[in-house]
Amino acid sequence: MVDLNPSASFSLRIELEIPNRPGALASIMSTIASVGGNLGDIVLLQRNLKYTQRELMVDAASSEQGDKIIEAIKSLPSVKVISYSDRTFAIHEGGKICVESKLPLHSQSDLAMAYTPGVGRICRAIAEKPEQVYNLTIKSNTVAVITDGSAVLGLGNLGAEASLPVMEGKALLFKEFAGIDAFPIALNTQNTEEIIKTVKQIAPVFGGVNLEDIAAPRCFEIEQRLRKELDIPVFHDDQHGTAIVVLGALYNALKLVGKTLSEVKIVINGAGAAGIAIASLLSQAGAHNIVICDSQGIISRQRKNLNPEKQRFAVEAQGTLADAMQNADIFLGVSAPGVVTPEMVHSMAQQPILFAMANPIPEIQPELVYDDVAVMATGRSDYPNQINNVLAFPGVFRGALDCRASAITTNMYLEAAKSIAALVNDEDLDREHIIPSVFDPRIATAVAAAVCLAAEKDNVARKKHPVNK
Amino acid sequence: MVDLNPSASFSLRIELEIPNRPGALASIMSTIASVGGNLGDIVLLQRNLKYTQRELMVDAASSEQGDKIIEAIKSLPSVKVISYSDRTFAIHEGGKICVESKLPLHSQSDLAMAYTPGVGRICRAIAEKPEQVYNLTIKSNTVAVITDGSAVLGLGNLGAEASLPVMEGKALLFKEFAGIDAFPIALNTQNTEEIIKTVKQIAPVFGGVNLEDIAAPRCFEIEQRLRKELDIPVFHDDQHGTAIVVLGALYNALKLVGKTLSEVKIVINGAGAAGIAIASLLSQAGAHNIVICDSQGIISRQRKNLNPEKQRFAVEAQGTLADAMQNADIFLGVSAPGVVTPEMVHSMAQQPILFAMANPIPEIQPELVYDDVAVMATGRSDYPNQINNVLAFPGVFRGALDCRASAITTNMYLEAAKSIAALVNDEDLDREHIIPSVFDPRIATAVAAAVCLAAEKDNVARKKHPVNK
Repeated sequence: MVDLNPSASFSLRIELEIPNRPGALASIMSTIASVGGNLGDIVLLQRNLKYTQRELMVDAASSEQGDKIIEAIKSLPSVKVISYSDRTFAIHEGGKICVESKLPLHSQSDLAMAYTPGVGRICRAIAEKPEQVYNLTIKSNTVAVITDGSAVLGLGNLGAEASLPVMEGKALLFKEFAGIDAFPIALNTQNTEEIIKTVKQIAPVFGGVNLEDIAAPRCFEIEQRLRKELDIPVFHDDQHGTAIVVLGALYNALKLVGKTLSEVKIVINGAGAAGIAIASLLSQAGAHNIVICDSQGIISRQRKNLNPEKQRFAVEAQGTLADAMQNADIFLGVSAPGVVTPEMVHSMAQQPILFAMANPIPEIQPELVYDDVAVMATGRSDYPNQINNVLAFPGVFRGALDCRASAITTNMYLEAAKSIAALVNDEDLDREHIIPSVFDPRIATAVAAAVCLAAEKDNVARKKHPVNK
Repeated sequence: MVDLNPSASFSLRIELEIPNRPGALASIMSTIASVGGNLGDIVLLQRNLKYTQRELMVDAASSEQGDKIIEAIKSLPSVKVISYSDRTFAIHEGGKICVESKLPLHSQSDLAMAYTPGVGRICRAIAEKPEQVYNLTIKSNTVAVITDGSAVLGLGNLGAEASLPVMEGKALLFKEFAGIDAFPIALNTQNTEEIIKTVKQIAPVFGGVNLEDIAAPRCFEIEQRLRKELDIPVFHDDQHGTAIVVLGALYNALKLVGKTLSEVKIVINGAGAAGIAIASLLSQAGAHNIVICDSQGIISRQRKNLNPEKQRFAVEAQGTLADAMQNADIFLGVSAPGVVTPEMVHSMAQQPILFAMANPIPEIQPELVYDDVAVMATGRSDYPNQINNVLAFPGVFRGALDCRASAITTNMYLEAAKSIAALVNDEDLDREHIIPSVFDPRIATAVAAAVCLAAEKDNVARKKHPVNK
């Protein structure tokens, strides 16, 4: 994986022993800079008259560059590398989540209440009144993060085991951003019917299902069927999470350029889960002129063997991505690195809006066209306007769980998008601030409230949502 | 559910306002005693010159008795019941476990390492070297607690949802007693093939499978098949957990009476999961003379339509449980309340050993025959010698996970039983102390070490176990 700039993905933790004399640390810092490392925290571990021991965090741009940084430091006279580690690997040792007890369990009484024989009373209470499962078990706050490992990030079909770090990461985000208990389930099958059946069979303990990294077009049928056949919210984040955040960001971008969704020409590059879902949500939000491209160019009615989802958005026009982009107001990329050229951008309408969301390397480097566009967004955290699903899915599920939604509706998506857009005040809104930071503490609560309200209007809320949550 | 004595299963938390004068609390305590309540903690919440507010924990013998206790207190003049709750229900509100993050997630760097893009490096590392899933995900410490809800405690086929409190309780015990992250999966199917298939499909994230409360004889095939078709340990606790603890306790009971396993006549009443597994493990430990009874009496070769497991232990003799018990040295009950009479016990051999493990009401009340037997054990915590699976399963899985066992073998069961027996010193061993308390902090470690060693001998350990764990 080549990255463009040093980043935390390739961060090193280096423990050094350095002579305790003026300039010793400075020379190490120069050395690190000279081989392209980016210094983070420096911690003094201990110090005597002769030596200091320090811990340095250094971001690299690749593993190879990380090795070079270590070599460069090792080559310095009188500097001793005590230890070093790849921080991303280090934090993954033993996994990123755990299951904890919410109760003390120190006495026979504790055991008799939490387990046998007392627990039998709870089982009978649920058997007699099945909806009690929401009050007396973890169901009301628990979400399954389900994958078949067929489309892991942008890395492809890595299989169930190799997808687990992403699913655990997702569980981490659910907890951190919305207080939701999520558990990763990576399936040992990539058969559509088997996936549907398995999810239905393990559903009782879960209050919601988050589908993740399942390849298109299989993901569409799996989601549709599960939505029909389960009475808990089912949400394919790669589709709808992305679509919600894109729509939220577009609302604010359009405000900046003084255009409306119903009048603009939108080009979406990428017709997988995200591309199709974005097209679908934008239509439902009022967009009329959408052209989707895939690796073969414009998805045109003239093309053969389109899957039903592509057929749905097929247009009369034919041609390449470059053809599609002429006079477009908006380009939304959920595709591949570098497929957009500055020329294509220059052929767009006045005040073009570009969301180049391929990750980690965008469809076009922002630097190349930054001055030619009205708004630029990417999927990266090191550029302004990061389009990140974490703005949507924690709040969507928080809301759906809080109102015990039996399903997730399009209005819930639309209201979630509006609530994200609304978190950017008019005073703060500018071309580098069209969406809130993922660390804005208001997000999940705002999205959840919007989702709850929409669920109530759509009659899928089985419980009044807590006011002022 | 009728219980015999006041117990924590029916514990109340009562908040009272009482006049602040001598004797006021004493009169409440007398009142509670007069209707059969058993007082636990009394906490002073606040006090002024006129009143005190106190919280009382009171065990009842049933919900009805709990109601009577509240009524009795309410009828006292100048005592105000501020609030009260059923403690067992209260601790179950929202469930008993949660999923927590093991990492900080406060900055873009944290996100970039734990989630995208950094996590992609971990996914690729596992894809390239699949056994890395044990180091870089939660798999190595995670166990699935799986049920179909068909035999929930002694309550029968309550279904998936109603079984969840037991499964969560089990997860709680896994964490508390062995530091294992266990997650409850209650299946929406009771079809043997569907259960097997579903467990195999969700297996990637789990380092082990604990089957729970699945009805016999289905449980036997499910366990056997999963053991064959998965490369992680599969353990049906209702079978083997019980068998291990019974064998451990029997080793010590036999020591007390000076008999050996190979010479004694053993009667097992109950031919479900536990009964068959006990018979099987005792045979493998050297017992030769085992008679199993079910609700129709002795499982005899003359009987028709026996399932394969019953056939395996069928004997020539015919007759009732009473017939079987004549001259038996050991009675092991995993059956139903009150099915054994004092007369049956009196017909046994000299120094009989009785394990009456039906829960919560034993096959015979210990008081009725206490002076006529050498050793008496039950499944209850309020009598001596509690036969409790929690003595076995946490340590068994701790050991199996620590040595990354590919399977669980009979030797692992046998060594686990010996290690439990060995925790009772000769000086401490008497008829009321044949097994350690479930709160003995040495248990899981001792069982785990024994299990690891047996796994290494049986060549199912994929990793050397940590010495001095």
